[in-house]
Order: sequence, then C-alpha cells, then structure tokens
Amino acid sequence: MSLRSLLTHLAAATPALTVSAHCDLPCGVYDPAQARIDAQSVKACMEKYAASSDADFKTRALIIKEERCEAVKHHLWVLWTDYFKPEHLADHPDLHDLFWKASKSAGEAKKTNDVVVADRLLAEIDQIADIFWATKK
Amino acid sequence: MSLRSLLTHLAAATPALTVSAHCDLPCGVYDPAQARIDAQSVKACMEKYAASSDADFKTRALIIKEERCEAVKHHLWVLWTDYFKPEHLADHPDLHDLFWKASKSAGEAKKTNDVVVADRLLAEIDQIADIFWATKK
Amino acid sequence: MSLRSLLTHLAAATPALTVSAHCDLPCGVYDPAQARIDAQSVKACMEKYAASSDADFKTRALIIKEERCEAVKHHLWVLWTDYFKPEHLADHPDLHDLFWKASKSAGEAKKTNDVVVADRLLAEIDQIADIFWATKK
Amino acid sequence: MSLRSLLTHLAAATPALTVSAHCDLPCGVYDPAQARIDAQSVKACMEKYAASSDADFKTRALIIKEERCEAVKHHLWVLWTDYFKPEHLADHPDLHDLFWKASKSAGEAKKTNDVVVADRLLAEIDQIADIFWATKK
Amino acid sequence: MSLRSLLTHLAAATPALTVSAHCDLPCGVYDPAQARIDAQSVKACMEKYAASSDADFKTRALIIKEERCEAVKHHLWVLWTDYFKPEHLADHPDLHDLFWKASKSAGEAKKTNDVVVADRLLAEIDQIADIFWATKK
Amino acid sequence: MSLRSLLTHLAAATPALTVSAHCDLPCGVYDPAQARIDAQSVKACMEKYAASSDADFKTRALIIKEERCEAVKHHLWVLWTDYFKPEHLADHPDLHDLFWKASKSAGEAKKTNDVVVADRLLAEIDQIADIFWATKK
Repeated sequence: MSLRSLLTHLAAATPALTVSAHCDLPCGVYDPAQARIDAQSVKACMEKYAASSDADFKTRALIIKEERCEAVKHHLWVLWTDYFKPEHLADHPDLHDLFWKASKSAGEAKKTNDVVVADRLLAEIDQIADIFWATKK
Repeated sequence: MSLRSLLTHLAAATPALTVSAHCDLPCGVYDPAQARIDAQSVKACMEKYAASSDADFKTRALIIKEERCEAVKHHLWVLWTDYFKPEHLADHPDLHDLFWKASKSAGEAKKTNDVVVADRLLAEIDQIADIFWATKK
Repeated sequence: MSLRSLLTHLAAATPALTVSAHCDLPCGVYDPAQARIDAQSVKACMEKYAASSDADFKTRALIIKEERCEAVKHHLWVLWTDYFKPEHLADHPDLHDLFWKASKSAGEAKKTNDVVVADRLLAEIDQIADIFWATKK
Repeated sequence: MSLRSLLTHLAAATPALTVSAHCDLPCGVYDPAQARIDAQSVKACMEKYAASSDADFKTRALIIKEERCEAVKHHLWVLWTDYFKPEHLADHPDLHDLFWKASKSAGEAKKTNDVVVADRLLAEIDQIADIFWATKK
Repeated sequence: MSLRSLLTHLAAATPALTVSAHCDLPCGVYDPAQARIDAQSVKACMEKYAASSDADFKTRALIIKEERCEAVKHHLWVLWTDYFKPEHLADHPDLHDLFWKASKSAGEAKKTNDVVVADRLLAEIDQIADIFWATKK
Repeated sequence: MSLRSLLTHLAAATPALTVSAHCDLPCGVYDPAQARIDAQSVKACMEKYAASSDADFKTRALIIKEERCEAVKHHLWVLWTDYFKPEHLADHPDLHDLFWKASKSAGEAKKTNDVVVADRLLAEIDQIADIFWATKK
C-alpha cells in the first residue's frame, strides 16, 4: 500500500463531524480534494492520450479532459467564492492570485496534452489546500 | 489540527502518479472520497435544517440536500460500474449488495432529515472505501 | 408478439395512475424504455460512424455516442437503485449482475464502434425489461 | 387497441436500423415516449403532492415536478426541431401550434398541482405521437 | 470604442426594473441577447476551426461548437414557449416558423463549419429580437 | 420603446465580427450581459416572492432563484478566469476583489429575498462590465 493510499484511506475512515462545524452555509462542507481528484483525471487523460495511437481514443481523451478541466474550475471557483472569507484573505493576501492562476491552468490544460501544465495545476491546488487546511487549524 | 485534517492534508500533498497506473480507462482516476464529501454535505444539510426555524432556509436545505444525494448516487454508480472488475467481485462477493444499499441510503436521505440515515450512508461509503483501497494494495 | 412486447405495449396504454400505485417515491414512474431509446441512439451513432468518411462527422458521432452511453447508464442506475426492491431481488437473484453487466456494456460502447457491443447492451436492457414488467404483473 | 398503441408497440419491437434510415442526423432515434414518461412523472408528482400532508414531502414534489416539466419541454423541443421536416409540416399544418401548446402545458404544470393540466399535457403528447407515428408509416 | 460596444455598454448600465414588469412568470426576464451571444460563439468556433491546422484544436472547436449550438437552441425554445403569448402570435403569424427555422439553423451549425450557416442563424435571431422588442414597446 | 430596449435592440442588431477578433480561445466571445440577465432574474424572483402569498409559488421562486444565482456565479467566473488577462489586472488592480465580491453577492442572493442584495449584485456586475468594455476600446 502506497503512502498516499494509506493516508487517503485513513482520512476517509475518520468522522467528518468536526468539519461542518466551521461553516455558516446550508451545506458547509468543502474539501480541496474534489478539485485535486479531477485534476488527476486531467493528467491521466494527457498521459493516456500520449500513450495511444488510436485516433478515436485520442478524441475521447480530449472530450473527457475538456469535462474534467471544467470540473476542476468549478470546484476551485466554489472554494474561492463560498469557503474563503475576508479574514482569510487578510492572512493570505495572494489568495486571489493563486485561485486565478490555478483556474487559468485548468483552462490551459484543455488546450494542451503537455503534462507539465497538469503538474503545475496539481501544485497550485496543493498550495490552495495548504492554505485551506491552515484556516481549519 | 484534527487527525482528519492532518491526514487529508498529507494525502492531498502526495503525488498521484501511482494511482493512474492501476487503470485501463481514458481517465482511470477513482476515489471514494468524492462520494464521501457529498455525503458529508447531505448530513450537514440535515443538521442545519434541524437547527433552523426559518421556513425558507429549510426549503433551501431540502433543495441542496436533494442535489447532494443525487451526487452521492452518481459517484457510487461510477465507482461500481467503472472501477470494480469481476476479479474484485470474486474477492468481495457482497460488493453488489453494498453498492445497492448505499445507493438506496442516498435515495432515502432525500426523503428524511434524520441524521441516522446520513450516518448509515457514510458508514456504507466507508465500507466501500475499505474494499476499494484493499484492491489497490 | 413476445410477452415483453405485449406487456410493454399494454403498460404504455394504461393510465399512469396504476403505475404510481406500486411506488413509494414522489414520482414513482419508471420505464426501461428510457434506457432502450438511448441505447438505440448509441447503436445508430456507431452505424453512422461506420458509414461515413467525413472526419468531423465521425468526431461528432463519438461526442454524441459518449453522451448517449452516459444517459443509458444513468437510466439503468436509477431503475436498479430506485425501482427494484429486496423482494424483487429475492425473485430475481441475478438482478445485480444483470445491471452491472448492462452498465459495463454501456461503458464499453463508449470505447468502441462495434455494433456487437450495442446489440449486447440492447439485449441486456431487454432482459431487464422482462424482469421489470414481470414485477408489474 | 388504438392505432397509436399498436404503432408504438410495433415500432418499439422493430430493430433500430430501419428507424435511423429516416434521419439525417448522427443519432436519428426519436420517440415521443420520452416526453410521455416524464409527463407521467409530472402527473404522479401532482397526485402524491395532493395525497400528502407532510410539508417537506410537498416541497420535494414541487422540486421534482419542476425538473420533470423541464424534461418534458426538452424532449418536445428536440422532437419538434430535430425530427420534423418541412414535408411533415405540409401534411400536418397544425404541428407548430400543437408543439407550442404542449410546451406551454408543460410550463403551466410547473405552476399548478391540478391534474387537469397534466392530463391535457398527456393528451397533447399523444396527439404529437399520433402524427409522429403517422410519418413513420 | 465600436458602436456595438457603446450600445451594449449603455444598455447594460440601464436599470432593468421596467423589463420584469411585463411578465407573469416567477422570473419573467427574457432577452434574445442570450441566444445571440451563444450564436456568436458558434460562429467564432467555425472561424477558429478554419484558421487552424492543429487536429486537436479542431476537435475541441467541434466539441465546443456542439455545446454552444445546443445552448442557442435552448435559449430560443425558452423564448418561444415561455415568453411569447397567443396575442403576439396574432400580430406576428410567422413567429412559429421563424423559431423553427432558427432552431434548425442552430442544429445545422453543429454539422458544418460553414460560417454562412452561422450568419443565417444570427440573422434569424435578429429577426426574433426585432419581434421581441416590438412586443415590449 | 424605453431607452434600454432601444439600446439593447441596436446592440443586438450590430455585427459581432469585431468582438471575436480580440480573443485567443477556441470561442473567444464574452459578454457581461450574460451575468446581468441572470441577475435580473434573481431580482425578479425576489420581487415576485415578496408580492405573493401562495406558499407553493414562493417555494418555486426559491428554487428558481437558487438556479439563477448559480448561473450568475458561473458567468462571472468564466469572465474572470477566461477573459481577463494579466495586463488587464495591471490596469485594474481591484479586478480580483470586484469579482470576488460580486460572486459572494450572488451567493448571498440565494439566502435572502432582500432586493438590496440583488441591486448590489447588479451594480457590481455593471462595474465589471465597465472594466470589460474599457479593455475592448
């Protein structure tokens, strides 16, 4: 079992009760993992596109990547608009720029099959996740 | 920082490269966390419904819960149909029944604001996650 | 005239009142015809793909087939989760497997233009329809 | 057995190959049954709304009816725009008006729980189905 | 600043209060600009398709054009069904035909990259807009 | 004919050719009018909610307002992420904050029927439109 598997598994098995207590919306559950999982799909689509020589398969990889990039953008936007509050911005003045760049990377990932873009997107989501979890401390 | 926060944070910060290597689809990235996050939203909607005496707020909690339950069902169905293979079923003969019951719990959670149903749904998703991560070992 | 045909026809011609009486959901109207119509679209997309030599037309056939396959899966999942009850499973112990295979065929139909897969999907939906209408007797 | 019933049944039992031969689109499979099934759901939502005294249940019936009415409209619009051709209009000069009225009934069904509106909608869809199957003869 | 920019800008800066006063629906805000903006996207996709020699870019242009055409159709259908009333039809007897042709042009624009079709669609939307704004006088 | 009608009408009748020339995306057509029209719907839902004493009508107003607010957010996010470039940010350093506040107003409009919030949202969209059209000069 990889480190990631172990950690995600443990995280999934831990009660979520404490999370919702921090929110004032009807739902109030946020998790940068949603954007990250879709960004992993984006990267996987690129890799599978590159590894294939079947034109139809490549077309389908483009179609699915287009959708997954859009899903990443949606999850990022929700996090930026709905979760983060002015006091978070005061502590993390680069918050707007970070979300803007990550959303733009998700848009750029539609246009290319270069995994460098997907890796940059994943790194930007990880930076956002760092800030997100810091606000939960 | 709670145990969950720490673990999810660490998991999010770990490269996902190894995950996609296990799959044969165009995307190939699956994670029971998607169903779990939406199920947490379902539970949070129930709790916020119960805690409020504002009729419009309660109506909105019902609207959003309806959507989140549907999202849980969708993530469960994708996992069941697209990720799990006959060899997994051989090792986990209760797989079908587990997904059926979890999907039905997600449907039942539309009809009630009793958190017992949401807790059962979360427990069923955790059982599915256990099997999922066992197949990744 | 097959039994299924006869039953489907009779059911379609019967007022919706009696249908909803079997259900405990807000809506309570189910019909395997929804999955079947979309599966026919899947097959038609494959045939039109094969018959064309226009690259853009073929790309569009792939895009639309992708959507129609997803619609088939959705209709199947709703039927499996929302309509069928434990007592149906007792009478039809292969129900889970049948839905699993049909959903997987719908997924496979995304990846191929081989009408054999679409025909198998249609046959599996017909088997499900047979069971469905048997429970309505 | 009405003419429509007979035709709908026969069409459903006929291989999809012949159906798509009448069309020039990538898919080419149309069936008024899609609109009808959703209109039955609309009617069932109204009936269940009327039969219940649970405020939350009634709210959910309204939410689901809203969606089902929209689905009816979508299926009607697709049929009107994509299936019917100028030569059909020549034979059935009231085609536009019939679709307009049926779409308006589907919109009106959002605003009321009076089954008279749902019954009128179902009757209008049946009139459209009569014309549809007449063009298939 | 172009004439269009100036006019749209001014229009956007003018209060919308008077618009909603003409309607009897829950929302009651309609604007043919929604269909037009998406139709402009359709035309732009065609132009960018023609100007590119990158196969993946061309595929993406087809995917996005497919979606934008569907959006045009949806906005047209909503306008036709929800906004226009029998008294408008009495004054503009070609209303049905105009919407039918515009919807069909939007469907045809999925199948071609010929900007002539997009220009015809835009002209038809402008004719509809003329009638729409005439009913607001 | 009101000033708004005249201007929007004229704007709609003016060719869009010049707009797409400014863009580097597959589509490249942006217009703050999309967010504004949906924000007008949000305000209209609030007004109609306030003017009605029918509980079901009020519930439907909440359902539709929820959707329209989400549509506003989506249109704002697309504009922010896809249209605006670093050079625009250099000229308009408050761009991020403006979009953040407008998106938050759209979220707040889900939770209230106070037209003050809808008016603030409309004013923020107008500020964004001012900047948008300034970049087109």
